[in-house]
Amino acid sequence: MTRFALTLEFDGTPFFGLQRQPHGPSVQQAVEEAAFAVTGEDVRLASAGRTDTGVHALAMRSHLDIEKDIEPFRLMEALNAKLRPDPVAVTHCEVVPDDWHARFTCVGRSYVYRIANRRAPLTLEKNRAWHVPQPLDEAAMHQAAQALVGNHDFTTFRSAHCQSASPQKTLDRLDVERDGDHVLIHAAARSFLHHQVRSMVGCLALVGMGRWAVDDVKKALEARDRQELGLNAPPHGLYFVAATYPDDA
Amino acid sequence: MTRFALTLEFDGTPFFGLQRQPHGPSVQQAVEEAAFAVTGEDVRLASAGRTDTGVHALAMRSHLDIEKDIEPFRLMEALNAKLRPDPVAVTHCEVVPDDWHARFTCVGRSYVYRIANRRAPLTLEKNRAWHVPQPLDEAAMHQAAQALVGNHDFTTFRSAHCQSASPQKTLDRLDVERDGDHVLIHAAARSFLHHQVRSMVGCLALVGMGRWAVDDVKKALEARDRQELGLNAPPHGLYFVAATYPDDA
Repeated sequence: MTRFALTLEFDGTPFFGLQRQPHGPSVQQAVEEAAFAVTGEDVRLASAGRTDTGVHALAMRSHLDIEKDIEPFRLMEALNAKLRPDPVAVTHCEVVPDDWHARFTCVGRSYVYRIANRRAPLTLEKNRAWHVPQPLDEAAMHQAAQALVGNHDFTTFRSAHCQSASPQKTLDRLDVERDGDHVLIHAAARSFLHHQVRSMVGCLALVGMGRWAVDDVKKALEARDRQELGLNAPPHGLYFVAATYPDDA
Repeated sequence: MTRFALTLEFDGTPFFGLQRQPHGPSVQQAVEEAAFAVTGEDVRLASAGRTDTGVHALAMRSHLDIEKDIEPFRLMEALNAKLRPDPVAVTHCEVVPDDWHARFTCVGRSYVYRIANRRAPLTLEKNRAWHVPQPLDEAAMHQAAQALVGNHDFTTFRSAHCQSASPQKTLDRLDVERDGDHVLIHAAARSFLHHQVRSMVGCLALVGMGRWAVDDVKKALEARDRQELGLNAPPHGLYFVAATYPDDA
């Protein structure tokens, strides 16, 4: 048995998220079926993060165990050939020790959330960014975001379906910057609650629009009450960008 | 009658090009139908460039003449509302003098061609870049490109369907640069022949792959023979990025 770590890139639009779902196609199912087609083995894919319907990944980290004797490059090429035409690609593949686990040994996850801030509807970026037509004050958003950095009870920013044992998390980074017509929000933590990034982004957008004061984000956090959530940003602006491991160079 | 200059952004994937075609949907038809829905007037859209099926635009310049009394911002908003769900958006709209013509007074056109240079198939960039899996030598491509800059007979790089009176054109810029996994080709000229950018990019890609020597591009140009064309790059990597006019600030 050999454990292979995969780096996956995917367009989340046609999937019911990364993890297998009984009611529709998932990235996990697509990769597992491709692996079966290549090896004849019934493998299970484990991944650093769970993502919702419509959420994208630039570099999700995953692993699977394979009995067949195959080189990593060959496995990557074969999986990519079988994955077509699904919008999932293996961009890197390597052999890792048996105790390396894409989810359980991961010590850091990061996301970027992309807002297209302009009047005109989206064309080339449809399903690739959240379209917010009102002008956003990114400096106010960044200031408000800093109240969320650190160790907090994130109950306000947690989905009712969240399976995490505790709402207590440490947020390492939440930076807001403008790049022309785009407002980008960078989030990093050891781990996140379900819907946490989208919930934080939604409230920051309210600040950017002037509907919330900068201080309202801190108040929402301190309320520890889901009812205080202002807005959950839509999934199609969210990208999983990196997972880090203790033995990363 | 008021003449309105429009800046258009579109995803060329579902269209048979910008200009009206008898056999399928076009950007021109979409905009003219939107204008009819807004004004009740049967208008004709004129544009700085013609684009083929699958070619995109970030900022095409166009114009149309309208009798109805309407402010540019209102016209832009109304056209965008009617254009949905077609992936065409008006990103800017202004009143221009009656002798301003999107095509005939345009003195410069520029394009960018986007190559995704990596092994893995494309997911989020499907239909947004040309996927070239072999490593490309962008420095060799840039060097080869310089032989095409200047005033030349571009017969080799001209489609058989080209309607231009002469194959003689002045190419102002053809720069090749790498940005991570992407190779970008920037082209600028007063005007281009049909398929000229895609034909030049195709030959530069052959140089990048090592299948052509740097000097072969110059030889192909000097042959003035379409049969010497190495490769026509696919349309979905091409973006019309700017049109310039004498009275631009």
